[in-house]
Amino acid sequence: MSAPDTATAGMRGLSATRFAATYLIETPGDVETVAAAMAGEQSTATHTRVAGETPELLRRHGAVVERIERLGTVSTPSLPSHATGAAQSFQRARVRISWPLHNIGPSLPMLMTTLMGNQTGMRDLTGLRLQSLELPEEFIRACPRPAFGITGTRRLSGVQARPLIGTIVKPNIGLAPEETAALVSEFAEAGLDFVKDDELMADPPYCPAVERAEAVLGAVRRAEDRTGHRLTYAVNITGEVDEMRRRHDAVLAAGGRCVMVNLNAVGLSGLLALRRHSQLPIHGHRAGWGAMARAPLMGADFGVYQQFWRLAGVDHLHVSGLGGKFWETAEDVTASARACLSPLLDDSDRAMPVFSGGSTVRHVAGTLRAAGSADLIMTTGGAILGHPGGPRAGVESMRAAWAAAMAGIPPDDFARDHPPLATALAHWPAHA
Amino acid sequence: MSAPDTATAGMRGLSATRFAATYLIETPGDVETVAAAMAGEQSTATHTRVAGETPELLRRHGAVVERIERLGTVSTPSLPSHATGAAQSFQRARVRISWPLHNIGPSLPMLMTTLMGNQTGMRDLTGLRLQSLELPEEFIRACPRPAFGITGTRRLSGVQARPLIGTIVKPNIGLAPEETAALVSEFAEAGLDFVKDDELMADPPYCPAVERAEAVLGAVRRAEDRTGHRLTYAVNITGEVDEMRRRHDAVLAAGGRCVMVNLNAVGLSGLLALRRHSQLPIHGHRAGWGAMARAPLMGADFGVYQQFWRLAGVDHLHVSGLGGKFWETAEDVTASARACLSPLLDDSDRAMPVFSGGSTVRHVAGTLRAAGSADLIMTTGGAILGHPGGPRAGVESMRAAWAAAMAGIPPDDFARDHPPLATALAHWPAHA
Repeated sequence: MSAPDTATAGMRGLSATRFAATYLIETPGDVETVAAAMAGEQSTATHTRVAGETPELLRRHGAVVERIERLGTVSTPSLPSHATGAAQSFQRARVRISWPLHNIGPSLPMLMTTLMGNQTGMRDLTGLRLQSLELPEEFIRACPRPAFGITGTRRLSGVQARPLIGTIVKPNIGLAPEETAALVSEFAEAGLDFVKDDELMADPPYCPAVERAEAVLGAVRRAEDRTGHRLTYAVNITGEVDEMRRRHDAVLAAGGRCVMVNLNAVGLSGLLALRRHSQLPIHGHRAGWGAMARAPLMGADFGVYQQFWRLAGVDHLHVSGLGGKFWETAEDVTASARACLSPLLDDSDRAMPVFSGGSTVRHVAGTLRAAGSADLIMTTGGAILGHPGGPRAGVESMRAAWAAAMAGIPPDDFARDHPPLATALAHWPAHA
Repeated sequence: MSAPDTATAGMRGLSATRFAATYLIETPGDVETVAAAMAGEQSTATHTRVAGETPELLRRHGAVVERIERLGTVSTPSLPSHATGAAQSFQRARVRISWPLHNIGPSLPMLMTTLMGNQTGMRDLTGLRLQSLELPEEFIRACPRPAFGITGTRRLSGVQARPLIGTIVKPNIGLAPEETAALVSEFAEAGLDFVKDDELMADPPYCPAVERAEAVLGAVRRAEDRTGHRLTYAVNITGEVDEMRRRHDAVLAAGGRCVMVNLNAVGLSGLLALRRHSQLPIHGHRAGWGAMARAPLMGADFGVYQQFWRLAGVDHLHVSGLGGKFWETAEDVTASARACLSPLLDDSDRAMPVFSGGSTVRHVAGTLRAAGSADLIMTTGGAILGHPGGPRAGVESMRAAWAAAMAGIPPDDFARDHPPLATALAHWPAHA
């Protein structure tokens, strides 16, 4: 990574700082040629050399292929291209490319354009997956990042030293504001720490976001007055930017402690606009993530995906769960949770992973092992609402399961003094 | 599509209006079961039945599997899932699902969440591609849609009855504001109608967007005063929402006629926030589109993709070109252009397709056939800058090629009276 050229001293904002990305690629062509074309396409070059692309400009702005690791060949292309012709062999390789930071400045949308732009469509690539991203401190510092993170979420929710035990308003959709308030009130009485809207519930005409937030948060406040236990309700405010800002303000005014957003639906600049305005933790739902991740030779790994959203300011991020509701393996979920819990710069920018999707008390010890930490939110529907003793017993069983896991005690042993856990373990027997 | 139930008359905003989507799916399981699970997951149901999911609520809010067309089986899954087990056969089918519009209200982000949300990750699907989308007039009318479209773009640009002939500032990046202004000034002198920034050039420290816009638009104005010919410069204002709004205002104040945005980098709510504010046509670049489109059994067809961005308000949308720079076939490009030119509700909401990527005079007649219309923007770098007679001859050769194509005259015949076209045809011989 070279120092800035003295000849460029007259140009503002040039520096030696670089960012780098590692891709898994596949091509019917020559790996080195294709890697060079990727670097060119995403920096100074077009498909034909133009006069202005001087050696000087290339030195200042060109992306550099830093490393190529050949990974063997396959006989069928992972992705179609009109240009594969009669090719019988497709070379795979891991390629690391770096760019000078001054090419984009501190812009997350432009980082996205650079890393996953026109190269995704290159005819000589039959596979392109973004596997990792290295950012300089200068860039990270310029991004908003989580305003609350783990510490702020714990402070607002009043839950320390154990996970937030949560659930989701069900049915997903169809309840009016007062019906939602009645349900969440029951959850509050049952001792839950956290309740979120379903990702499909935002601002439909029969249940407007602001009206729902006010009704539910009022009920939550009254329940807290009775029980002394705090419940955080994540209101799904997904929408246009001005809508989200207005809904956020209503949630804040009604005493709310969290807003929720469907990240892929609003996009990076949508989330950034909310983050610049927000005074509450942002609960990030990744609905649609499958479309970006499931094709093995296209899209991006979750490790990169979560970097973008945390840089943009999410405080909580969904990682699926060990219940196996989605396509990902337990190893995938583990890696995703640990990524959220790894600092970008320091501990303050860690996001709370949200485990959800088909979990019961049987998944608690595994979830703790997966995350390597109790700094998480675990939302389960069935395990709370489906407990034979009712929701309160459901909550008690989950808390006991976590106490057991954190103390390293097998749940069946711990259950001898914790009847709701014993009931849950009998109701959800160990997997075969 | 059933009328609203009288028992629901007390709930606001319910109606019989529905929207529908058609997916290509693949599953190791039973197609009907999986289709029902997709409909449930994206409306009222979770993986376990909950008490509140009454028949009444299901009738009001449930998605309905309208049609299943079986398409045969394949022996290897298109996408991985931990749940495929020892399956040897994967059934493909086309599935049409409909939803009541009151589930989401007039919200594009919530339409996205519903159509491409958690179902993308379902473990029992090994393929899910959104192929088409039918929206009711009520929804379309509530979306901002293009403010300028074809008519507005032609009015501002001063180009009637032929395509806008354009190019891209090259090198992509690296030029300072005054250098960019000098280059675009040459383009204006050469008679080009349209020049856009590269998608990689937005607001880097060495070439801030506002400063570049002011320098270039000043040079464009001076060139217009000399030549009488108008040039539209699309300034790439991609960034955070407040940044884009500020840059838009600066472009407008400096006499600009177009702003450009990298759609996938800013996201739906980002684009909507600009559209709500904008007084200029929005030139939509689809950098990153490959990642959403290339896996045949995941993502969405361009027909759906362009619906979303036009509903959100883009006036121009890139469709690649017949030069074959990207993976798509000529048939793909043709279908994409025609999709942009098809009304959502009426002619005012058609978007101008932008053909770009490796085109020369040889591609003009094909481009006209592909689009079925001259309502398009054709940006070419090499064909203008690489013309042996220089950029002015390059522009003249492209205009002549379009005049020939629109008159149905073979270019070699037409070139007898148009020397710059003759030179271009000699320089870029017909493909083998």
